[in-house]
Amino acid sequence: MNTFYQKLALIWKKHNSLLCVGLDSDFDHLPPAVKKQKFPQYVFNKAIIDATHDLVCAYKPNSAFYEAGGDKGIVELKMTCDYLRKKYPDIVIILDAKRADIGSTNNGYVTYAYDYLGADAVTLHPYLGREALQPFLDRKEKGSIILCRTSNPGAGEFQDTLYQKVAKHVAKDWNTNSNCSLVVGATYPAQLAIVRRIVKNMPLLIPGIGAQGGDIAKTVHAGVDRHGAGAIINASRSIIFSSGSLDFAEKAREEAQKLKKQINTYR
Amino acid sequence: MNTFYQKLALIWKKHNSLLCVGLDSDFDHLPPAVKKQKFPQYVFNKAIIDATHDLVCAYKPNSAFYEAGGDKGIVELKMTCDYLRKKYPDIVIILDAKRADIGSTNNGYVTYAYDYLGADAVTLHPYLGREALQPFLDRKEKGSIILCRTSNPGAGEFQDTLYQKVAKHVAKDWNTNSNCSLVVGATYPAQLAIVRRIVKNMPLLIPGIGAQGGDIAKTVHAGVDRHGAGAIINASRSIIFSSGSLDFAEKAREEAQKLKKQINTYR
Repeated sequence: MNTFYQKLALIWKKHNSLLCVGLDSDFDHLPPAVKKQKFPQYVFNKAIIDATHDLVCAYKPNSAFYEAGGDKGIVELKMTCDYLRKKYPDIVIILDAKRADIGSTNNGYVTYAYDYLGADAVTLHPYLGREALQPFLDRKEKGSIILCRTSNPGAGEFQDTLYQKVAKHVAKDWNTNSNCSLVVGATYPAQLAIVRRIVKNMPLLIPGIGAQGGDIAKTVHAGVDRHGAGAIINASRSIIFSSGSLDFAEKAREEAQKLKKQINTYR
Repeated sequence: MNTFYQKLALIWKKHNSLLCVGLDSDFDHLPPAVKKQKFPQYVFNKAIIDATHDLVCAYKPNSAFYEAGGDKGIVELKMTCDYLRKKYPDIVIILDAKRADIGSTNNGYVTYAYDYLGADAVTLHPYLGREALQPFLDRKEKGSIILCRTSNPGAGEFQDTLYQKVAKHVAKDWNTNSNCSLVVGATYPAQLAIVRRIVKNMPLLIPGIGAQGGDIAKTVHAGVDRHGAGAIINASRSIIFSSGSLDFAEKAREEAQKLKKQINTYR
């Protein structure tokens, strides 16, 4: 089985795309006809996936939007991941769950993300340090994507002090299994460029284009590695909710196609 | 309805206890006879709760141990919280989920923790800053318990730089709704004393006694407020797994009683 890095390298090339579509499929924002389905989030995701699969390197469901539905939401998240693995096994599944607990407790999250859902990678908070995250890092074939510089307006409150240190520690000490990545928001292109210099060719997950307003040209210039790859550039709402009607999948494809093209223009 | 602070004040007094029992009910560690039940984690928790309810101020289920079971585990966590709210409504329920995402995405976690599970408080990572956590802070009646100095051996990697800043920011800027609390590990009594000075009477959640080896006398001296309260002192495995046989609830009561007494000796 391919590792997280290997899967990324293959799909970047195969689909000629750095685009990741965020499956932030908030029930409240689904088209009315989809809401009436038995498994509305899954039905919505399946349609988005079938319409965009050849344009992306990864899908990134955010666990929060499924946990909001309790155990039923978790089932729909699992159905989504199962469908992806079965139908499009080359595409990387990133569980955006922003987890991190102390040592052995993380085994529960490891089981949830990798064994139950079958994701290829999971996003993680750095605050507890490497020692705490060892159960994630030990899963050599899976990706540990550590929050470094997040895309939100208030990210600087603690990260100004810390994001370069996080990047340095992850690049130097955490990545012994070649399975680490960092989250750096497209809304901070200057910081993105600094992180890219620190981590060299490490893959970066870059959210914040689309609805959050990150500039695509600046993001690509600052974010890609020296081969013009190395980046997973995520858009969520601007793609999946570009239409509120039954043409949502078709419109999502148009948006994804546009964004993939724009990204490739600047590589 | 009482707020998080009000509920804490009432139960500290009513049960004369600062003890919190962590429901880290890892399926693999349940007694063999319990494992065979249809809802093993719930059956186990119910027995532990019924045996210890008069000795504690709070229960703290850690979401990781239930997520490991996928949707079925989530159901057992919900059954546990529902039972607690119905049978022992005075006792505080802390969902130890260590969440934190950007702005509106947190609404999903807010719904999961407060509306689906009905917890009184949830633990949160500080890394994304106050602006990101606003959806939690806005739930005035619920507690936002921010990780400050965690109990794990490697906590210092980033927290040495940051834990005092987190304590100061939360005390000064985040707590406008009087619903914040901080996590400070019993394994770092010197840092616990520093945080207590910074946050004055703010309630602190203190894990790390019991299996993790934190010293009870030092923890209580450093952790309580000037009224000898203000602390939620958590033990998990040392109580719930003190016996691996069918007398687990009885043994848990003995351990909880001993610990409650020891804590009260030093208040």
